[in-house]
Amino acid sequence: MLNEENIIGYLKSQFRDSASIIGIGDDAAIFPKNEQESYVISKDLLVEEQHFRLRYYDAATLAQKVLQVNLSDIAAMGAKPHSVLLGLAIPPTLSENWLNTFLESFVEACKENRVILLGGDTTASSTHLFISATVIGEAPNANLKRRNTAQVGDVVCVAGQLGEAHTDLLLLEKNLRKTAPMYVQAKVQEGLWFGNHPEVHAMMDISDGLYLDLSRLCEASQVGAEVVLDGIIPSRELIEACAVLTLDPLQCMLVGGEDYGLLVTIDPHQYEPLAAAFLKKFGYSLARVGTITQHSGIRLIQNNQEVPMIYRPFSHFGEL
Amino acid sequence: MLNEENIIGYLKSQFRDSASIIGIGDDAAIFPKNEQESYVISKDLLVEEQHFRLRYYDAATLAQKVLQVNLSDIAAMGAKPHSVLLGLAIPPTLSENWLNTFLESFVEACKENRVILLGGDTTASSTHLFISATVIGEAPNANLKRRNTAQVGDVVCVAGQLGEAHTDLLLLEKNLRKTAPMYVQAKVQEGLWFGNHPEVHAMMDISDGLYLDLSRLCEASQVGAEVVLDGIIPSRELIEACAVLTLDPLQCMLVGGEDYGLLVTIDPHQYEPLAAAFLKKFGYSLARVGTITQHSGIRLIQNNQEVPMIYRPFSHFGEL
Repeated sequence: MLNEENIIGYLKSQFRDSASIIGIGDDAAIFPKNEQESYVISKDLLVEEQHFRLRYYDAATLAQKVLQVNLSDIAAMGAKPHSVLLGLAIPPTLSENWLNTFLESFVEACKENRVILLGGDTTASSTHLFISATVIGEAPNANLKRRNTAQVGDVVCVAGQLGEAHTDLLLLEKNLRKTAPMYVQAKVQEGLWFGNHPEVHAMMDISDGLYLDLSRLCEASQVGAEVVLDGIIPSRELIEACAVLTLDPLQCMLVGGEDYGLLVTIDPHQYEPLAAAFLKKFGYSLARVGTITQHSGIRLIQNNQEVPMIYRPFSHFGEL
Repeated sequence: MLNEENIIGYLKSQFRDSASIIGIGDDAAIFPKNEQESYVISKDLLVEEQHFRLRYYDAATLAQKVLQVNLSDIAAMGAKPHSVLLGLAIPPTLSENWLNTFLESFVEACKENRVILLGGDTTASSTHLFISATVIGEAPNANLKRRNTAQVGDVVCVAGQLGEAHTDLLLLEKNLRKTAPMYVQAKVQEGLWFGNHPEVHAMMDISDGLYLDLSRLCEASQVGAEVVLDGIIPSRELIEACAVLTLDPLQCMLVGGEDYGLLVTIDPHQYEPLAAAFLKKFGYSLARVGTITQHSGIRLIQNNQEVPMIYRPFSHFGEL
């Protein structure tokens, strides 16, 4: 059972969803608030040396990352952030000053995002820093977006940069850059906006790379997808970073993790006005990367021909 | 800031409670479900070598403990358990078989307690096992019990054994006993029953020992308490364990942690019928241990005389 998909599959099979409670299998679980609204809830662990290294993060940046990573799950449901609980297991190597800065920065990040810190738990840890956050959001039932509702023919789009979080980390790991990893910023406003648009059929956040996360969305929706590689355009920053790292930008965009953009599938008849409205609202383009197909699995298309997936997706124990 | 009370105080000061959202400072936070009902939510961390040792716990017992420790916080609010999220950071030393048993046992414990596993997160850990659970309960607003509502003159009572969890652990630590620590059983039914009784003015669970937790209840309620030691009667099991350990049973009952009983304060005019009804309902007595006073702090009374508190309360980083 000791891998992510097996654990999720087993636990999901043990608890049946009801009309108002939807549990394991999406970015967040759903439970009822009142007749018209629901809460969504998600929990993420961040473990030192697994998800972050303290030598790359100062306390303030890490505090922001903890909140943003969790807010991304709420955004992916089309919900508004409501509150958070924070768990910290603190090793003796961390100073009081470090902890103070972390807590103050976390409080500030909560306030910036209008999120209430409802509680949590602090304890000692023998070795590493463990951080666990649980975040709650709320949304009108009609606005909730899921990953199992993509429809054949939908246009697949991405809101947000792909690949840069990955190259940022590699530059740090190889001592080619001294500054902290790219500041993670959950697409909270975009998620709310997509929630208000019924022509957005399915949504999830991209935490483990476009290829793996699109595979999950397709599996949940029992569909497949064609990804047109010619349409996936690397940024200038990504091209420059890949030149230094001698990496293929396309590879980074397909399998690099920690991007925290939003993956959406859109009614093809509504795609053009929606994309235009998105650009006007947010000042950057919704990137069109492919189409949902009946045939299961992900097919990659380049120069109008199918090409094999030669990149190995990033994999770890993950969200339930 | 690096101690529990300071962290809680700082974070509590940063987020103001509203009419419907009550955050840091009780066993669980409160947020609205609908006009008549609220949700309560609590998060507990359990860290290997801080809260448990794997050589004392098999996977099934530990899974039960994780759920029960969290349910105890829900019980302490007078609420009914609703759902749970589970976070696991798993070290490479744990076998697939161990993890399977843990997950299956956790699922079983959830089902026994009619709690839905809504989701969570699994990840790798370099060294220790780190467990984080977030539990949600629900209650009619009128049933919610808090720790800041004790009134001068209230009778202070305890539902559940005191001290045995502490001696159990010591017997194991000293190799005087081979079996697993006492099975933790949250007082879920008792908590719900107290929730239904308006004459119960305040409630919390006893996780860090009667002395420390009663001090917290008094501080939150801006009152004090007299504890009549003559009325705190050790069980036969506790007396026997203390004889082996050469410990004072009263000390264990005042400062031993991990009891997970419920501490309640009761309208003195309603105490006798309530205690009689409790005995009839649950088959064991509600232990009367003292009285709420105007004078702040805890005074210990023995043979009608005040005696000093000579025992050092157990202390650790704790719940927010």
